[in-house]
Amino acid sequence: MNLPEQIQIREVGPRDGLQAEPEFMATENKIALINQLFQAGFKMMEATSFVNPKAIPQLRDAEQVVKGINRSAEITVSALVGNIRGVKRALMAGADEVQVVISASEEHNRRNVNMSIRQSLIQLEEVVPQAQQSNLVVRAAIATAFGCPFEGEIPLKKILGLINNFQQLGIKQVTLADTAGLGDPLLVTKIIQGVREGYPQIELALHFHDTRGLGLANALAGLQSGVTILEASLGGLGGCPFIPRATGNIATEDLVFMVERMGIQTGIDLTKILTTARWLENLVGHELPGKVLKAGISGGCFVD
Amino acid sequence: MNLPEQIQIREVGPRDGLQAEPEFMATENKIALINQLFQAGFKMMEATSFVNPKAIPQLRDAEQVVKGINRSAEITVSALVGNIRGVKRALMAGADEVQVVISASEEHNRRNVNMSIRQSLIQLEEVVPQAQQSNLVVRAAIATAFGCPFEGEIPLKKILGLINNFQQLGIKQVTLADTAGLGDPLLVTKIIQGVREGYPQIELALHFHDTRGLGLANALAGLQSGVTILEASLGGLGGCPFIPRATGNIATEDLVFMVERMGIQTGIDLTKILTTARWLENLVGHELPGKVLKAGISGGCFVD
Repeated sequence: MNLPEQIQIREVGPRDGLQAEPEFMATENKIALINQLFQAGFKMMEATSFVNPKAIPQLRDAEQVVKGINRSAEITVSALVGNIRGVKRALMAGADEVQVVISASEEHNRRNVNMSIRQSLIQLEEVVPQAQQSNLVVRAAIATAFGCPFEGEIPLKKILGLINNFQQLGIKQVTLADTAGLGDPLLVTKIIQGVREGYPQIELALHFHDTRGLGLANALAGLQSGVTILEASLGGLGGCPFIPRATGNIATEDLVFMVERMGIQTGIDLTKILTTARWLENLVGHELPGKVLKAGISGGCFVD
Repeated sequence: MNLPEQIQIREVGPRDGLQAEPEFMATENKIALINQLFQAGFKMMEATSFVNPKAIPQLRDAEQVVKGINRSAEITVSALVGNIRGVKRALMAGADEVQVVISASEEHNRRNVNMSIRQSLIQLEEVVPQAQQSNLVVRAAIATAFGCPFEGEIPLKKILGLINNFQQLGIKQVTLADTAGLGDPLLVTKIIQGVREGYPQIELALHFHDTRGLGLANALAGLQSGVTILEASLGGLGGCPFIPRATGNIATEDLVFMVERMGIQTGIDLTKILTTARWLENLVGHELPGKVLKAGISGGCFVD
């Protein structure tokens, strides 16, 4: 089995996870969560989202959250932005990186940001240079890259087209997101191959939702294809407001458990993040889908 | 990605799933469950267990269950047995196959069947010939093959030693079981390779528990290693009496979803088994861990 020696896990719970929570999490708890995670060895984190607070009230405290993070040279604090105003807010707050999102599916993009893909691309042409002039790293995420609930499978050329746009804007980091949890390991392998052939200089990251339970299998396929940046959410925090009981991102600690068992280095202290995950579960007041959280690292069942 | 064109999914919910349920399921419901699943395209099923009803009261109706199954030429009705008495009961009831279980871990074997591995092997020497003389197919399962909560990682030579014993008894079908959900995809690959090299004529099956969320990733590793018989439990029915909220076997419908998306034939009607899984969830009266059951086949989430 062909696997990388080490990978980076990019924690997205504070953004993708919390934005899907029904309750607003107190700012000091968000800051404590992020600082505990950086303490546990993360280097990259999507800390919050500088979008319209009316659209995502759960993250309306983005400025205070970013300002509250204990900074060190080797960590990258990233925030989602949708427009120029978001870039300015992220910059003022002290973010290192901004992430822009565009969907590979016309219908999904419309529902997600109320614009056509064309309109989103035009907006990127002003947002991205603005961020780059401010020395912010720009990461672009492609939502529904592995399938759309409205449009079904996404042709590879749609993904390549978007990456071409990103590259022309000077973007080097691209995240392929399985927003609806419709990807499978073979599709993941094919799309990564296609992107690698077309755009070898792009640094790929993968973002899987565990909506249908394939999250870690898809992550494994990504690792076997040589991708070394995977996104995950502590405890599997998040989910989907449109699917009752559906899970969100793959659980960070389950991903760490899997890859470390295979001898892949993550630099993350699994015991520490499990402690944080249990604290988080109490904090949000409901069960989180993460499984190592329930079963523990070494415990097991006596019956077959 | 190297994958088989078709696989057999061996349903174990009626045995491994139901034995872990706190409540006794009415015999007619067990029979309806099994018949609906065979109707949906399964060819192999672990229908029940002919062990001491005091040990597993949930399956005390094993005779009636096996007798109630609508038989056809191409299906194999299997039952777990622990001793000569179990073989005789399975034969009388009309089972096609009996499964014997032995653990690769001394401590787990003791806790599971209250015997040393040596004692279990001596017992197999009378149980297996008895079954073979009655023209019952004999399948042997190795519990905790991918790790034991008490003894940690299991040396490959222990597994090879047991398979050697099985082969000497004329057993051709062997199931490697990740009883405690401690396996990882790389370990799965290594163990399968080791068994293949040592015993190429043995037909391997894999049995994964999703205790730590790695079930489908491990199944993928098994498929990539060329194994074409995977066990699963409808809805992920089962779990572990020793780990609150821990999940049991991988969910059949999630496995079917994954492999069919990759173009691997299973012969199973996913829509039909989802209907049965929803009925089963109502029947047992609690949420089942299966994820396609929650999210559906094509639905998805609008947020990234």
